[in-house]
Amino acid sequence: MASLGDIGLAAAINLLSAFTFLIAFAILRIQPINDRVYFPKWYLKGLRTSPLHTGAFVSKFVNLDFKSYIRFLNWMPAALQMPEPELIDHAGLDSAVYLRIYLLGLKIFVPIALLAFSVMVPVNWTNDTLKRSNLVYSSIDKLSISNIPLGSNRFWTHLVMAYAFTFWTCYILKREYQIIATMRLHFLASERRRPDQFTVLVRNVPPDPDESVSELVEHFFLVNHPDHYLTHQVIYNAKKLSGLVAKKKKKQNWLDYYQLKYSRNQSQRPTKKTGFLGLCGNKVDAIDFYTEEIDKLSKEIELEREKVIKNPKSIMPAAFVSFRTRWGAAVCAQTQQSRNPTTWLTEWAPEPRDVYWNNMAIPYVSLTIRRLIVAVAFFFLTFFFMIPIAFVQSLANIEGIEKVAPFLKAFIEIPFIKSFIQGFLPGIALKIFLIFLPTILMIMSKFEGFISTSALERRSATRYYIFQFINVFLGSIITGTAFQQLDKFIHLSANEIPKTIGVSIPMKATFFITYIMVDGWAGCAGEILRLKPLIFYHLKNFLLVKTEKDREEAMDPGTIGFNTGEPQIQLYFLLGLVYAVVTPFLLPYIIIFFAFAYVVYRHQIINVYNQEYESAAAFWPDVHGRIIFALVISQLLLMGLLSTKEASNSTPLLITLPVLTIWFHRFCKGRYEPAFIRHPLQEAMMKDTLERAREPNFNLKEFLQSAYIHPVFKGGDEDSESEAMSEVGEQEPVLVQTKRQSRRNTPAPSKQSSSFSSPPHESADKHSRP
Amino acid sequence: MASLGDIGLAAAINLLSAFTFLIAFAILRIQPINDRVYFPKWYLKGLRTSPLHTGAFVSKFVNLDFKSYIRFLNWMPAALQMPEPELIDHAGLDSAVYLRIYLLGLKIFVPIALLAFSVMVPVNWTNDTLKRSNLVYSSIDKLSISNIPLGSNRFWTHLVMAYAFTFWTCYILKREYQIIATMRLHFLASERRRPDQFTVLVRNVPPDPDESVSELVEHFFLVNHPDHYLTHQVIYNAKKLSGLVAKKKKKQNWLDYYQLKYSRNQSQRPTKKTGFLGLCGNKVDAIDFYTEEIDKLSKEIELEREKVIKNPKSIMPAAFVSFRTRWGAAVCAQTQQSRNPTTWLTEWAPEPRDVYWNNMAIPYVSLTIRRLIVAVAFFFLTFFFMIPIAFVQSLANIEGIEKVAPFLKAFIEIPFIKSFIQGFLPGIALKIFLIFLPTILMIMSKFEGFISTSALERRSATRYYIFQFINVFLGSIITGTAFQQLDKFIHLSANEIPKTIGVSIPMKATFFITYIMVDGWAGCAGEILRLKPLIFYHLKNFLLVKTEKDREEAMDPGTIGFNTGEPQIQLYFLLGLVYAVVTPFLLPYIIIFFAFAYVVYRHQIINVYNQEYESAAAFWPDVHGRIIFALVISQLLLMGLLSTKEASNSTPLLITLPVLTIWFHRFCKGRYEPAFIRHPLQEAMMKDTLERAREPNFNLKEFLQSAYIHPVFKGGDEDSESEAMSEVGEQEPVLVQTKRQSRRNTPAPSKQSSSFSSPPHESADKHSRP
Repeated sequence: MASLGDIGLAAAINLLSAFTFLIAFAILRIQPINDRVYFPKWYLKGLRTSPLHTGAFVSKFVNLDFKSYIRFLNWMPAALQMPEPELIDHAGLDSAVYLRIYLLGLKIFVPIALLAFSVMVPVNWTNDTLKRSNLVYSSIDKLSISNIPLGSNRFWTHLVMAYAFTFWTCYILKREYQIIATMRLHFLASERRRPDQFTVLVRNVPPDPDESVSELVEHFFLVNHPDHYLTHQVIYNAKKLSGLVAKKKKKQNWLDYYQLKYSRNQSQRPTKKTGFLGLCGNKVDAIDFYTEEIDKLSKEIELEREKVIKNPKSIMPAAFVSFRTRWGAAVCAQTQQSRNPTTWLTEWAPEPRDVYWNNMAIPYVSLTIRRLIVAVAFFFLTFFFMIPIAFVQSLANIEGIEKVAPFLKAFIEIPFIKSFIQGFLPGIALKIFLIFLPTILMIMSKFEGFISTSALERRSATRYYIFQFINVFLGSIITGTAFQQLDKFIHLSANEIPKTIGVSIPMKATFFITYIMVDGWAGCAGEILRLKPLIFYHLKNFLLVKTEKDREEAMDPGTIGFNTGEPQIQLYFLLGLVYAVVTPFLLPYIIIFFAFAYVVYRHQIINVYNQEYESAAAFWPDVHGRIIFALVISQLLLMGLLSTKEASNSTPLLITLPVLTIWFHRFCKGRYEPAFIRHPLQEAMMKDTLERAREPNFNLKEFLQSAYIHPVFKGGDEDSESEAMSEVGEQEPVLVQTKRQSRRNTPAPSKQSSSFSSPPHESADKHSRP
Repeated sequence: MASLGDIGLAAAINLLSAFTFLIAFAILRIQPINDRVYFPKWYLKGLRTSPLHTGAFVSKFVNLDFKSYIRFLNWMPAALQMPEPELIDHAGLDSAVYLRIYLLGLKIFVPIALLAFSVMVPVNWTNDTLKRSNLVYSSIDKLSISNIPLGSNRFWTHLVMAYAFTFWTCYILKREYQIIATMRLHFLASERRRPDQFTVLVRNVPPDPDESVSELVEHFFLVNHPDHYLTHQVIYNAKKLSGLVAKKKKKQNWLDYYQLKYSRNQSQRPTKKTGFLGLCGNKVDAIDFYTEEIDKLSKEIELEREKVIKNPKSIMPAAFVSFRTRWGAAVCAQTQQSRNPTTWLTEWAPEPRDVYWNNMAIPYVSLTIRRLIVAVAFFFLTFFFMIPIAFVQSLANIEGIEKVAPFLKAFIEIPFIKSFIQGFLPGIALKIFLIFLPTILMIMSKFEGFISTSALERRSATRYYIFQFINVFLGSIITGTAFQQLDKFIHLSANEIPKTIGVSIPMKATFFITYIMVDGWAGCAGEILRLKPLIFYHLKNFLLVKTEKDREEAMDPGTIGFNTGEPQIQLYFLLGLVYAVVTPFLLPYIIIFFAFAYVVYRHQIINVYNQEYESAAAFWPDVHGRIIFALVISQLLLMGLLSTKEASNSTPLLITLPVLTIWFHRFCKGRYEPAFIRHPLQEAMMKDTLERAREPNFNLKEFLQSAYIHPVFKGGDEDSESEAMSEVGEQEPVLVQTKRQSRRNTPAPSKQSSSFSSPPHESADKHSRP
């Protein structure tokens, strides 16, 4: 086991590497050439244009203002200064609430750590159980529960602390749920008119031999919602069309690349081979080839588009139905329409940019079967994923490679390369799997049939959390693959399971401390450096970019990535709650993680990430539920641990804790969850009345006419998606233009931004002034 | 273990006792004096009046038509002859669907038994495992799975059979769910105008300093449902008033008793003592005393009634809100009204007679706390109920009684009485607890805050089933109190639990066969005899009855008793499914139970039980869910049993069974359950349109005005409840008067019934003609 000194060394190394990342970031971000990598959000908002057009030639690429290097940590206070309402305006409620998860971590763990260090550490420290035993122990263990003798009365301290921590966590959770529910309702209420407020998605329209889907929908809603129905929009099956458009875009990219190549070196027209991956086949003139291909595709797209619109078979049995009032939409979304509960299914339409178009037409029976298949598949993925990896690992050894590719033998036999392969290859198979895991989970969710990106991400996040809980948390404690654990647990009795896990927990504290430093601290610092987008941006910039628009596309702002980010945070909540009573020494590491990650992600959300959709914090019930889950797990494990310490007379008191926690969860669910899934009629009526009074002659039908058109029908070209986005952007309230107009850290202010920046706006100015 | 002969003897005894009951019933029911005990339903419907007024004096009390004694089993075909639609008309959909549970048992188990006897019994029989072993075994065991050698390939038969039985059960369940959902929707659609179709119950109206509850409700709904709101009815807190009315009724009964006594023996005015239980205190003239008391109470009631109506504090924060259309009510019942999801809670109003008035004003927080308390209390009741009983039993022995009441010593020491006390007293404590258990569970449900009698009964039924599952089913198999089981299970691993239970199952077959015969067969026969109501009716008749109306009140028709009856049936489903594969010999006993109970309860529903409410088969999802639960349990236990038989290679195939079954349950839940909890707008709109076309000038407001008034405000006297009932009865369609007009079995037809009976109605006549 590691001593305090070892931990200190590890901490120093990790701090150093995190610090290196930060310095690299601080230098790279103030280079004008990287401006689009580190501030893409502002470009997308149109508040900043490329700095390449102004100033001297060198200063277009390298920052020569040396003063700015001194203030290289300025981004931290700057990131913290933007007030929350402005942040919501700037990056959406989802992002603002996402940041609150980190704050929630601080709110929960700072007081818990203070209490633990002032009460529990002295209680643990002033024993000599470990000293008298023959066990090898470290200084950390002296601070932990392991140092208390069996059956000691001091365990009452831990019991009381467990109660205190539970009540504190629940109190903070309840408060936070309330605040976020209010924020959500306020956000929804203060929004301007948006198409999804008036629109309901209808699925599983039953087939009718006499009427088309469009007629059927119109008649049904005219009959059943006569005073409220306004218009509707059928949904086309444009899967093939989107495929063609995507293909055309790819070819266009190649064309751009070859044209740029030709323009730089006019002496020789670029050529390419037509065969597999451009490695074999006839040599042709690349520009002509791609121009021709694109022409062909354009015609195909045109044909397909007409076919889709004209052919009644390509209309899916689903539609977006819009109502005259928000009240009408709220009523339709919350009620059952027809006698058969599997037809005419209604739900609130997601935002236009949030719609996942491919899953619109899945019938009810198919949906339930898909759910079963995915559940079984996920079970096998979680518990048996080691089997294929072990298989790959067994293949990917020296002998395996030599067998498959004998010509590589001479190369492989070089000692350095041999040891590299032997050392890294098995790990790489696992690492590749783990990198692709979120994608696999996302594919599962897509197969399951959710109809909005936000729902897809939420479900993937749940699965990712379960995977991490079983394979990272339990896997590290029990050591063994998930399947071995499962086998073990099946053969253990219900009261043995918490004991088995609980007893190993104190011993794993140092491992998890290291894990937090590597995965949490260094991971965060790596996130802010954005190495991958940086490299890709410069590659694209060099190879493809011709116009300003191309450059815009070359930016890869990325998103928050709820489906991977949130489960990671939740793992820290779990660790913190489990170790709070057992080894409080772990808490400061978690607090540092939460604080550091908060600053980093606040910066990223303000400057980098692009908002893909706005679900108005619909994910909060999941976040709340998982923290409750972690709390219950921590209570059960403590119970197991204490029962091995001959303190089993505390069991009845410990059993009431999870009962109370679960009851608390149910209470919160009833009290706050409806705010995230239902739509109060009172609110809808209020907004309707207000709006009618304010704009009595507004033409709502026109406003809603083209809101829910599949992106491929909108622009007709490859930019349709970004257009859809910008269209939504236009409907948002005009932003105060002065945000981030101060550019002392990143000189050469863009024309547009600077022209807008006078007169400076006080409140918006605060956050970026050093 | 019992041999086939023993079982045969037990069967003979039970058949004999059942037969005795049936003969006693056949004789008693055709005595005119018992007419009100065995045909109260017809009296309540007003289709039959007392036979006491006609014919010779003797024939008023004793049936002298000896021919009718010969046809004493006629009631069986008569009970079966009434067609289902007419039954729904006569006794309500609840009763008709309740009977279908018995039919469902027959539909599931008859084919299963045929298959089991033709395939599995030969497979089991043609082994000699038991013969070769040294175990004591019976002939029944030779038919069971115990006779198959360990690790035999013959277990594949059982595996295939388990699949076949599961698929058959699921198929029948799905078909039944579909039929009953259709019946429910048809029933709701074909109903005449009823107040609850237009009415929504609003609870948790938030307090307002400026407005009364009534004004607040009116304003809220005028604003938020402007086109649909019609009127509303506030709810008074009339708990005290109902108490006073009940008290007055009691005194009135005593007054009647003394007046009758006086009228029979005019020489002496009856007296009573005013002290405790009439045992001590001053002697007073009883008639004067009670007249005075009743006068006092009448005044008090009048005062209280005025106080309740005038005092704004006695108005509860809840109201029945009625809408212009069914559409409006359906919308309001299914949507969230206000921003705060714990205020303005709306749900469909129960039928007026189904309303449980005392629970109207429980605030949200209190509700969730009550739910926690009841859950914990039920847990302790289920697992620790033996502790107080054991305590009582330890007190209730000879020494205990002698200590408490030394004066009884001489009496107790008589050998016969001593042995009686020693033999029966301990059992009586348990028996008394079991008799009161449904009442205790009902009190729990009431405390939990349900607002309709039907919901109370459904919840009590669920709890009763859980209690029976743990204490009767598991308790008989594991032998030991529930707490000992719990303790055992906690210390067993997850895969050991089904093994431990599974392995004891074949050995308990004979016990459960006996149980079915005693509890099922003899219990049913006892139910039809109605010994308790018979005795009570004649007692009341002798002591209290003066007028025809008193006699009507002396009838105790009873109800189906969903909260006790359904869990009992479910126990048989559980036994049947568990033993279908293990010991198919048990199946015929269950089939006989279902068939016999079906006939008995059909007779009782037609002739005896009074319908307290109509929930339109809202209980079916519970029934379906519990059968699925039994199915899953049977699969798990079979898995446990087979794994002890060294047939564990079948485990993967057996694990898929519960997975598929649970998936099937989820599918059915999504597909059919909404029909039982939601209200399609299409249906509502259709009925509204139809009705508007048919009766354009109907005054709905007047119709709804007094529908939801607390029963004590209706009549003002003790008959209020029956009045409320009869009022609802008036709104029902006029019944075809000829039902059961043929009285060959029960002579001396009543005047009213016979006067109505011409001309006879063909379809209605069928069921009672011999």
